Amino acid sequence: MIAVHNLFAGIPQGVPEEIFQEILRTESFRIERIVSRGQASPPGFWYDQETEEWVLLVSGSATLLFDDGRKIDLEPGDHLLIPRHLRHRVERTAPGQETVWLAIHFGGG
Amino acid sequence: MIAVHNLFAGIPQGVPEEIFQEILRTESFRIERIVSRGQASPPGFWYDQETEEWVLLVSGSATLLFDDGRKIDLEPGDHLLIPRHLRHRVERTAPGQETVWLAIHFGGG
Repeated sequence: MIAVHNLFAGIPQGVPEEIFQEILRTESFRIERIVSRGQASPPGFWYDQETEEWVLLVSGSATLLFDDGRKIDLEPGDHLLIPRHLRHRVERTAPGQETVWLAIHFGGG
Repeated sequence: MIAVHNLFAGIPQGVPEEIFQEILRTESFRIERIVSRGQASPPGFWYDQETEEWVLLVSGSATLLFDDGRKIDLEPGDHLLIPRHLRHRVERTAPGQETVWLAIHFGGG
């Protein structure tokens, strides 16, 4: 009846891209696991999202860049709220290991 | 503008009880950090919640007991959805260390 899953398990191997997987979807929000293995956003690419995103870096490390020039280095346990339409990109994720993120998307439309 | 906090930082010390702190509240859900230091639910106490709870064990370890007798041991990265009114209790959390939980409460009423 109660299903337990693990954020660090069941990660597809041999996939060159970042992996986005839905954990839970309700009418008002969606929880997603993201696994990065050294990827960054493509050059010139900016996320400009219609929804708010609360994000937690669970393992690994990463650097976010915001379009006001601010850079934020993230270590395990770091979390932040990214307002909708705040342009940002992933400058780097840790090479040679898995960076696992938990993202909650909400407040669309 | 963007504030970064860390799940493992700013934990009040010298508090004998489990610590419940709100991280984010919206109209439709609430994200909470829970820190346990060996506590368990009091004898005979059962959670019987009006809301759904998605919970992630971030660090430490714990055992949940459900009222059908099922016991679930949780390690870091384990997550589960506890439906509303599914009676459960925390049988144990790891002694001598901090067990950090992330809980998302939603779907009330």
